[in-house]
This record gives sequence, structure tokens and C-alpha cells, in this order.
Amino acid sequence: MFSVALDAMGGDYGPSETIEAALKVINDYGYTVYLVGVESQISNILADKHYDKSLIHVINADDVIEDNDNPLKALREKPNASIIQAVNLAKEGTVDAVVSMGSTGASMASASLILGLLEGIERPAIGGPMLGSLSDVVFLDVGSNLDCRPSQLLGFGAIGTVFSANIQGKNNPRVGLLNVGTESNKGNKQIKDAYELFEKSSLNFIGNIESVDLFSDKVDVAICDGFIGNILLKYTEGIGYAIINKIGSMVADFLPPELVQKLYKEIADKMNVAEVGGGGPLFGVNGIVIVGHGRSKSDSIANGILLAKRAYDVELTNLIKKAIDTV
Amino acid sequence: MFSVALDAMGGDYGPSETIEAALKVINDYGYTVYLVGVESQISNILADKHYDKSLIHVINADDVIEDNDNPLKALREKPNASIIQAVNLAKEGTVDAVVSMGSTGASMASASLILGLLEGIERPAIGGPMLGSLSDVVFLDVGSNLDCRPSQLLGFGAIGTVFSANIQGKNNPRVGLLNVGTESNKGNKQIKDAYELFEKSSLNFIGNIESVDLFSDKVDVAICDGFIGNILLKYTEGIGYAIINKIGSMVADFLPPELVQKLYKEIADKMNVAEVGGGGPLFGVNGIVIVGHGRSKSDSIANGILLAKRAYDVELTNLIKKAIDTV
Repeated sequence: MFSVALDAMGGDYGPSETIEAALKVINDYGYTVYLVGVESQISNILADKHYDKSLIHVINADDVIEDNDNPLKALREKPNASIIQAVNLAKEGTVDAVVSMGSTGASMASASLILGLLEGIERPAIGGPMLGSLSDVVFLDVGSNLDCRPSQLLGFGAIGTVFSANIQGKNNPRVGLLNVGTESNKGNKQIKDAYELFEKSSLNFIGNIESVDLFSDKVDVAICDGFIGNILLKYTEGIGYAIINKIGSMVADFLPPELVQKLYKEIADKMNVAEVGGGGPLFGVNGIVIVGHGRSKSDSIANGILLAKRAYDVELTNLIKKAIDTV
Repeated sequence: MFSVALDAMGGDYGPSETIEAALKVINDYGYTVYLVGVESQISNILADKHYDKSLIHVINADDVIEDNDNPLKALREKPNASIIQAVNLAKEGTVDAVVSMGSTGASMASASLILGLLEGIERPAIGGPMLGSLSDVVFLDVGSNLDCRPSQLLGFGAIGTVFSANIQGKNNPRVGLLNVGTESNKGNKQIKDAYELFEKSSLNFIGNIESVDLFSDKVDVAICDGFIGNILLKYTEGIGYAIINKIGSMVADFLPPELVQKLYKEIADKMNVAEVGGGGPLFGVNGIVIVGHGRSKSDSIANGILLAKRAYDVELTNLIKKAIDTV
């Protein structure tokens, strides 16, 4: 059976939400969950819950890495942090995967240093269908690969193709380069150079795409460097909230208050990228590590665990290794 | 009085919308409008309208530059295009400003070659409060400055400050660099180098901002290169439509059909960036040229003309010239 280490302290809502997610996946699917965090807090919350006690293990980890800690420094100074202990469990083979809604930087640093990176990877990439219910296009990198050489972008293309084909089940995924226009001569130097590499590669490259195409059925995998990807991801969050607030005020004129409330709640629930997304894998790490949004609640954390299981089943790490070697 | 050359053929809806906008500004404000385009079409539409005939001049221009024409080639091969004739009217001093909802590339090429660029400017920048009713933060460049040196970004900072202070009337506008995090050591090489320049400059530089901050009251002017800016602008359009469609389907469960229709229309009207925005100036050109979205309808085109008037009144071109020299 599948076992996962869950960073119980990770995420804005703390152990109450992570433990809820753990109970959901052991009850619904019979997975084994290692809850890694402050034991006293975890035990308190578990005390009045009903569940199969053989499927939950509590691993004490007292340190917590905060969002604004320097990840590498934190790794040295807080060796008993929950994310580090969680990754250690994967390293020693006790669990099949790690899931954390805590600091992405800390997860990346822990995973890179403890599990190691695949050959040809300089730092993990993050991506997936990051736009929640608005689009299932896989886009990467949205992480910390900020100054990318064209060959790195090509690596993202290979990774995205594996994800789209094996996690989403798409046939021969179409790969596009995110650009300011669709013509082959468009873009900055980085993208023009990458275009040539992609064209010669074994990927199903359809050329340049524009950002509107992320919301159409033109492409399955969209490639950009982490600088743009991360800006787009945070922009999505910002514009989502701005639009929801705007709608709330503009419908107040003609909808009765109880329907405004209902509409507002409905939109907030369904449009919340953090809720729907459930996070994505750290690509290029030698193991399965899923990182998610700090604002994730239990449903979304449980989705992250299901994604980890799917990645485990298809042997995502091996597939990516092969894809990067081939491309 | 103020006179403007309006590219009557520019925009997706053709002369019917541009002429509607022209009639609006001559009736409401008494401006003089030179309608530049295919005379027979324009005269047909004008035939049954009532207006002060001394305030409208029709200038025949038979060629039309299409969106996918190469702008520089089109300038040579279609000398009688409406945008070229419109810019010529500004060059010879017949009009105070030019407004076009046609091909942005063609406007940029015409304006750069015919009017010339200010010293220190390599190609025009585009920007302004591009997010419609969602945010009044000025962001630039959203145009075609794709590989920007830090000094170019600093120039955008100076331009954005002028726009925010003199067009929007803000006091001592706060300028931020769009980045993946707010710490001073964040970002790619381009932004790190720019950070140092901005810090030493006379601008009211508040440091790095994240894309969520475009929707808060943290900053008045957000600076990025045209590659990212243009991707963000098109992304906004894409996500706007995706969200509107999504909302339409999610409220159908609990709202009566006539309210769904009303909601849908309300949102589509108020959220439409093209409708609300009305376009922005080509910054760095030696003259006032406003370019807008191809999907603009008459209200938005009229807004573009009002923006041109405001830019004329404050002597935007001179202010930008001085700001770039100073910074």
C-alpha cells in the first residue's frame, strides 16, 4: 500500500487542516500517513477522532521553517523541522512520497539536498495545471528557475509532456513556448534561441503561444521561465480576488442580499486556485515531493496526497529521468 | 481648440464605431476631429448624422495596414494607409494628437519614423492603467521593448511617474519593480541590476513588488520589460473571459435565467479591459499618439480621445523629455 509523509505543520491553517486531510485519505483510500510535526499538538487533535490507528504514525519534529527564513540557513539551523524530517522519511524508504503546504523554498532546499536532483537538473521546477478550474494546461516553470538557458526550457518541455501524458492522461501533448506573439521570429533572445531547440527536439512542439491561449484548447503544455511563471501565478491570485470583490459590489444593485452572499461564496470557493489546484510536484527531484499553496484547506491537501499517489503509480521520477535523457 | 486625427479604419468594428466616437467628442466637447480613412465609407456613415460640420474633416486614405502585416514593410508599401496619413497630420501641425485602435505595430512604426523619438529612447513604450476597472496602477512596458537593459527600465520608471503624477494627478507616485518577491536580492539578473539603478535615482522607488500588489494600494507605477508586460496584458484578457464564462455556468444553478443574463452582461461590460481602458500613449514618441485595443467600441475610443486631450494639456511629451533627462 501507499504511504506518504505529510508535513503536518505546513500551511497557513496548521495541523487542524493537514490532519483532516490525512484522515480523509486513510478513511477513503486506506493509505498510510506519517504526520510529521509537533507531537503534542498533533496528538491533541487526533485524540477525539475515529480512524484506523495502524494507518497513522506521528513523527515528532519541533522546528518550523517560516516563509521568510532563508531556506539553506534554515536547513542547517533547524534540522528538526517538519519538512526536513518528512523528506528524511522518503530518503530512508519509509514513505513513498512527501506532501507539504509549507514554505516552497524550504521544500525545494530539503528535497534537493536530501533526495538529490536528477542528472541535468540544476534546481527543481514547479508546474502543473496551476490555474485551477479555469484551465488544465500544464505550465512550468512557476518556481525559482529565473534566468533559464534554452536547454533548461527544453527540459521543462520534456517534464511537462510527461505530466500531461501520464498524470492527466492526454495523448501526445502539444507543447508551446509562452511568447508575445505566435510567429516564429517573435520574442526576446532567450525564447528565439529556445524555439530552435524545441523545433529540433522530439517533443510535439506547436510553436509560440500567447498567454490568452492558456485558456483555449490550443496547447497542453506551456513553457516559460520561472520569473514569468511565478509572476503569472501570483497575478492570477491577485486578479482573482480583485474580480471577486468587483463582482460583489456590482451585483449588489440588482440581486437581493442573500443571493449576493451565495454568489460571492460560490465564486470564492470554485475560483480559488489554492483550493482547486492541490499543488504540484517538485520536478527534477529524485523522489516524489508535492508542494502546495499555503492557503490550502483539507480538501486541497487531500488532493495533493492523491496527486502524490498518482505520481507514485506511474513512476513519475523515472519517466522524467528518461524524458530528460531523451529530449 | 483641440484637434485630433482619428484613424477611422482602425479597430475591429471599423468606421461605424470610430465615427460614433468622433461625433461624441465634437458634440460634448467641441473638439475638431480629422477622420482619416476610406472617404466613401466615412461619408456614407456621416450622411444621416447631425453635427457641426466645421468640426469634422474627412481625409481620404485608401490603404489599410492589417494586424499581420509587417509594420515597416507596410509603411513603405502602403503610404496611403490611414495611420500614416493620420500621423502625417500631426507632423505637419494640423492636429494636436493622433488616436488609433488599429495595429499597434503599425502605429509604433509610423509614429517612430514620422514623428521621431525622444533622445535616449530606442522604441516607444506602452503603458498606463491597463487593468481597466480592476486597478489604476500604471504599468509599463506592455509593448515591444523585449530585451531591456536596466537603464531602459529606469526610463520607464520616469515615464510612469510623469503619467501617474500629471495624467492621474497622484502625488509623488510610488514606483516598484515587478519581481517574484519583495526582498532586494530577489529576481533575475536584469531586475537585480535595475534595482541598484532605481535606488540611486530621483524616483520615489519603493523596491520590488509582486504581481498581487498590482491590485492593492502599495504602488502607483509598476515597471517590467515589454516581454512580461505584454504577456500579462494578454493574460488578463484571457483570464477575464475564462472567469466570466465560468461564472455564467456556476450561477445557473441558483439564479433565475433572466438574472443570469443580467449578471453576465453587467460583468462583461464592466470587466472588459478594452472598454474601460481606452488605450494608452506611445511613450517616447515626439508627439501625442494614443493607441487602443482593437476591440474598443465608441465609448472607449472617445475615452482615448479624452486621454489625448489631457496629454496635450499637460504637455506630456515635454514632461517625459525632461523626466528622462533628469533621471
